[in-house]
Amino acid sequence: MARYGILTSGGDCPGLNAVIRAIVLDADSGHETFEYVGYRDGFWGLVYGETIELDRTVVRGISKEGGTILGTSRFGPYTEPDGGPENIRKAMDRLDVDGVIAIGGDGTMAAAARLYGDGIPTVGVPKTIDNDLAATDYTFGFNTAVEIATEAVDRLRTTGNSHRRCMVLEVMGRHAGWIALYSGMAGGAHAILIPEAAESLEQVCAWVTSVRDRGRSPMIVVAEGFTLPEMDEAHSHKGLDGFNRPRLGGIGEILAPLIEEKTGIETRATVLGHIQRGGVPSAWDRVLGTRFGFAVPELIADGGWGQMLALRGTDIIRVPFSEAVGHTKNVPLDLYGEARAAFG
Amino acid sequence: MARYGILTSGGDCPGLNAVIRAIVLDADSGHETFEYVGYRDGFWGLVYGETIELDRTVVRGISKEGGTILGTSRFGPYTEPDGGPENIRKAMDRLDVDGVIAIGGDGTMAAAARLYGDGIPTVGVPKTIDNDLAATDYTFGFNTAVEIATEAVDRLRTTGNSHRRCMVLEVMGRHAGWIALYSGMAGGAHAILIPEAAESLEQVCAWVTSVRDRGRSPMIVVAEGFTLPEMDEAHSHKGLDGFNRPRLGGIGEILAPLIEEKTGIETRATVLGHIQRGGVPSAWDRVLGTRFGFAVPELIADGGWGQMLALRGTDIIRVPFSEAVGHTKNVPLDLYGEARAAFG
Amino acid sequence: MARYGILTSGGDCPGLNAVIRAIVLDADSGHETFEYVGYRDGFWGLVYGETIELDRTVVRGISKEGGTILGTSRFGPYTEPDGGPENIRKAMDRLDVDGVIAIGGDGTMAAAARLYGDGIPTVGVPKTIDNDLAATDYTFGFNTAVEIATEAVDRLRTTGNSHRRCMVLEVMGRHAGWIALYSGMAGGAHAILIPEAAESLEQVCAWVTSVRDRGRSPMIVVAEGFTLPEMDEAHSHKGLDGFNRPRLGGIGEILAPLIEEKTGIETRATVLGHIQRGGVPSAWDRVLGTRFGFAVPELIADGGWGQMLALRGTDIIRVPFSEAVGHTKNVPLDLYGEARAAFG
Amino acid sequence: MARYGILTSGGDCPGLNAVIRAIVLDADSGHETFEYVGYRDGFWGLVYGETIELDRTVVRGISKEGGTILGTSRFGPYTEPDGGPENIRKAMDRLDVDGVIAIGGDGTMAAAARLYGDGIPTVGVPKTIDNDLAATDYTFGFNTAVEIATEAVDRLRTTGNSHRRCMVLEVMGRHAGWIALYSGMAGGAHAILIPEAAESLEQVCAWVTSVRDRGRSPMIVVAEGFTLPEMDEAHSHKGLDGFNRPRLGGIGEILAPLIEEKTGIETRATVLGHIQRGGVPSAWDRVLGTRFGFAVPELIADGGWGQMLALRGTDIIRVPFSEAVGHTKNVPLDLYGEARAAFG
Repeated sequence: MARYGILTSGGDCPGLNAVIRAIVLDADSGHETFEYVGYRDGFWGLVYGETIELDRTVVRGISKEGGTILGTSRFGPYTEPDGGPENIRKAMDRLDVDGVIAIGGDGTMAAAARLYGDGIPTVGVPKTIDNDLAATDYTFGFNTAVEIATEAVDRLRTTGNSHRRCMVLEVMGRHAGWIALYSGMAGGAHAILIPEAAESLEQVCAWVTSVRDRGRSPMIVVAEGFTLPEMDEAHSHKGLDGFNRPRLGGIGEILAPLIEEKTGIETRATVLGHIQRGGVPSAWDRVLGTRFGFAVPELIADGGWGQMLALRGTDIIRVPFSEAVGHTKNVPLDLYGEARAAFG
Repeated sequence: MARYGILTSGGDCPGLNAVIRAIVLDADSGHETFEYVGYRDGFWGLVYGETIELDRTVVRGISKEGGTILGTSRFGPYTEPDGGPENIRKAMDRLDVDGVIAIGGDGTMAAAARLYGDGIPTVGVPKTIDNDLAATDYTFGFNTAVEIATEAVDRLRTTGNSHRRCMVLEVMGRHAGWIALYSGMAGGAHAILIPEAAESLEQVCAWVTSVRDRGRSPMIVVAEGFTLPEMDEAHSHKGLDGFNRPRLGGIGEILAPLIEEKTGIETRATVLGHIQRGGVPSAWDRVLGTRFGFAVPELIADGGWGQMLALRGTDIIRVPFSEAVGHTKNVPLDLYGEARAAFG
Repeated sequence: MARYGILTSGGDCPGLNAVIRAIVLDADSGHETFEYVGYRDGFWGLVYGETIELDRTVVRGISKEGGTILGTSRFGPYTEPDGGPENIRKAMDRLDVDGVIAIGGDGTMAAAARLYGDGIPTVGVPKTIDNDLAATDYTFGFNTAVEIATEAVDRLRTTGNSHRRCMVLEVMGRHAGWIALYSGMAGGAHAILIPEAAESLEQVCAWVTSVRDRGRSPMIVVAEGFTLPEMDEAHSHKGLDGFNRPRLGGIGEILAPLIEEKTGIETRATVLGHIQRGGVPSAWDRVLGTRFGFAVPELIADGGWGQMLALRGTDIIRVPFSEAVGHTKNVPLDLYGEARAAFG
Repeated sequence: MARYGILTSGGDCPGLNAVIRAIVLDADSGHETFEYVGYRDGFWGLVYGETIELDRTVVRGISKEGGTILGTSRFGPYTEPDGGPENIRKAMDRLDVDGVIAIGGDGTMAAAARLYGDGIPTVGVPKTIDNDLAATDYTFGFNTAVEIATEAVDRLRTTGNSHRRCMVLEVMGRHAGWIALYSGMAGGAHAILIPEAAESLEQVCAWVTSVRDRGRSPMIVVAEGFTLPEMDEAHSHKGLDGFNRPRLGGIGEILAPLIEEKTGIETRATVLGHIQRGGVPSAWDRVLGTRFGFAVPELIADGGWGQMLALRGTDIIRVPFSEAVGHTKNVPLDLYGEARAAFG
């Protein structure tokens, strides 16, 4: 009886539980010779051999729950003192685990690739709420985040219109602006600001003013990773007050008063934050997670160690770790240009 | 100044207004030499020259509205007495309309292809809530329908569990079972029944019994086009009572008492109906509709008459009508098989 | 250590789990001398002594789940052979249960009152999705049902408008039209038909025609218990075809073709059905259920057997079973009249 | 033909449009002798005589839209140079407006009362998202805000659980903690912090630690008006950095690092902000707004100037301005105590 360990690593996102459930259900029905355990809190569980048994009753009804029943962490299998391939191999042997199914983003896939290189049978399932993994058309979690962000745009517009205010919504996207682009297009934003495309404060204010001059209330969606060329130290994320607290806002909080100052239009910022990554996954994300999960036992049965699953068109395909890791999928500038043509 | 007419034809679905808005906005910003009018109620407006002017103020905020601001109908441009290419050409000349943008499903594309063959400049944008057009990976409307159907599955499960009942949900899908497959997978249904895959009542009841025997309440999602091999005249859609009313139910209403009779499990059917095709479109459908809309002026500017837009992976591509028409995209049996392995 | 048994009886509705959770949590924190068990499947569990232990871990996170973790049934404690006060008393003694907390509707409260009269310590928590219990301003479940029905109205309107159809939505409400009234008012229906108010087909069609003549698409919400004065045997719910199946539709299915026939307006019916009673409860219903639950230990500590909790204004009050049972709270005709003035 | 002017003043909230629509529809059907205009942007429109005509077509479908079609502002009819009763009276005469319907919160009602005292016929409809007007059981907007905040709690919990973090959600409520209390109860928060109830940081951390020790992830809902007794100047809302931007966060941002520091549990804050006050109103808020609207023409027909409508139990009642103004409805400490007993 082959026995494999599933782990979820990095930031959580809606759809993780659908993957876990589908792997386990598939075992139950199709691949009777496979058994699964879940590693607690990502690579931490792998290193310390902390697991939970996974059977049908444990995964019952979980695909509609956000987060991950296994827990997750940013624990690195190579960076932590007790990590490294020898220790991991020993912990796996102790628990009779024959291979690892790593569900995570770029960092997780890089670690998985290294484990595979060090002789530990490993496969990957891609996950990032930011949708910025190059090897796959979409990752689960992204769709849910876009739906939540779009509802926020819809809500902010009505209050913006009533008060004749400019509303700024900051959404996730440190390196790639996919959530901002999609929710901005869906919500009909008057400007969408993403890390991939430099836009000056002057340009942003020109759009804002143009909207106001048509008698409308400007709506701006900005990805957290966007920076203004004009931004200097005084606006940096480092904080000026020396007070020990996490910055909630960032660019949204910086942008709003600048717009207000330059255009004279009352402007309010909202930072969507963690709400984007929690709660009931969209049907789309559940389906994508479930399809990835169903494909895992086949991948293993085919001896596909060292590979990551990916969505290409409507197909679930397999990609070697070497191709999957380290490539950020940025918003193409022509796609941004399409949307940008309607700004203002 | 070139001037084009937009029409929406066939059953409505969420996302139509996003297409219309994007075409018009794009005209406003990028292609200043294009002007658009909207034809009322599909091909009826084309034949009779009934239009509404389309400018920025008319399309303001509409992408988040279901339905179509132009109205729609099943009026055929060739089948109706006043139709035909000569009359249509005359009506277009009278209104100075240089070409037609037809947004619709397979029937609409077939009519559009014929118009194009008869010398009327026509392009197409695909639309079907059922997602069964072969030339495109997805159509807008489908995603919204799946989200609505999945929420219904989620809701029915809790009441099913509380009463230890079998719940049957009938969703749209006359020829293809995409909505049933996706919402069933997302909602974790114990059986999904689609037109593409024959399943016997015996098999269905075996799944139901197996679920009950695990102490769970069976959840079945069935596409309206599914038929039981056992179905005879007595269960046909034609109705036995001679009473002049539309059948709401169909297969769901037929299946529920049969399951109850054979398994002894109290069974209830719900027919989701028109709710699936109305209301606020999902963000995904708004983005897809908007991208199609943005691509229309370019398509026309490139002289791409006789072509339909389509989604392939993450790209908007162009497909000749000849390839786009008449091919139903059925659920592939291997994809159904993946899901089916977890039934029961 | 006093020990009480909780049961949920009759049709399930959203909010039941919030009551159960709050009772148990309160025990955990405030009333350490109370312990609770849950009876399975309503009075069936009471009669047969089938219970599940209830502690903090069992009720974790359940207030956001629809249905009832205890199960429910329409089993009557007096009507079933093994029922009756002696048997129930014995079953309670065997399990060391000192009193019963019955959560249910009018039938459940009537049974609870009789148990109390027969010397079994019993208190009641009111529950009905129909909101027709006279002793309380609102019952939980109703608010969720209204939100779901209103979303359906919103969705149906867009498809109705696109096709210039009359849409009929049938919602729950056998004896009282609260769900129809509230969802119809919230959704801006052009006619709301409830059991409490006779309206002729002629009047309904006059409203429909008036809406059409303004260029709008008529939207009608009808409670399942509404009957047309014109309805004769041929339209009765008994069914004419002798085919063994539950009627999904009823009045909605009857009304739609009649309207279509008399007005010439294409008309479609949708029967919302069980979707109204399942799934995630609204925040309002969770708060109301939680407040009822928190009030139960106090009620018991005060020796308040023979009483039911109720909402009066913003307060949770106590009402003797004798006052609470047997009074249907109908929609007042002046409230209906307010809404009716805007029909058509 | 009597003619009245409607204005919406102060912060917008969901349900305003339902009031406006119901007043106008009622005029259309029942009180044919009444005509209505809408004043733009609150009292600003009253002072400057800026209006829009209100008829059936203008209010079509607006009850499901957030915000106010009239616009709103914090312009005071007495505090601005062009204000004052003489100028207002002149502006009303110029437009043939016989009386004012003021929809707003406590400040608006105070201004309306003063106008009435100065001889200008005025009635009031209560509105505050915070639900803190003493004369009415509930105000519209509050229910929608609670639903949105509760969904945020639900979402934050899954990501909190996955990462074993403490999540802090800051919701609206400057003077009264109703939104925090209701959404916290609905979402099962482990602590709810409101302006009405002093809780020490030590107590908050005791709850947090207790939750962590049970293996759970703490969830805290805090009203923006809550202050820690320990808070000194260094944590004040005034800002230390002198940088010209609105504070998004406030107490949530202050609390999170303090909890993290004292308990060692990773803690994240989310500030819900303007999302709470925008977008599609809940059915409940639409019904309440509609009922208020329907009651306005009757109130005027009865000569009820100087009165405000209010909800008492299930009835719409009338309250003299003198009773309605200046009384904040705080969360009663016994209600808070009920919820508090289950904290930790």
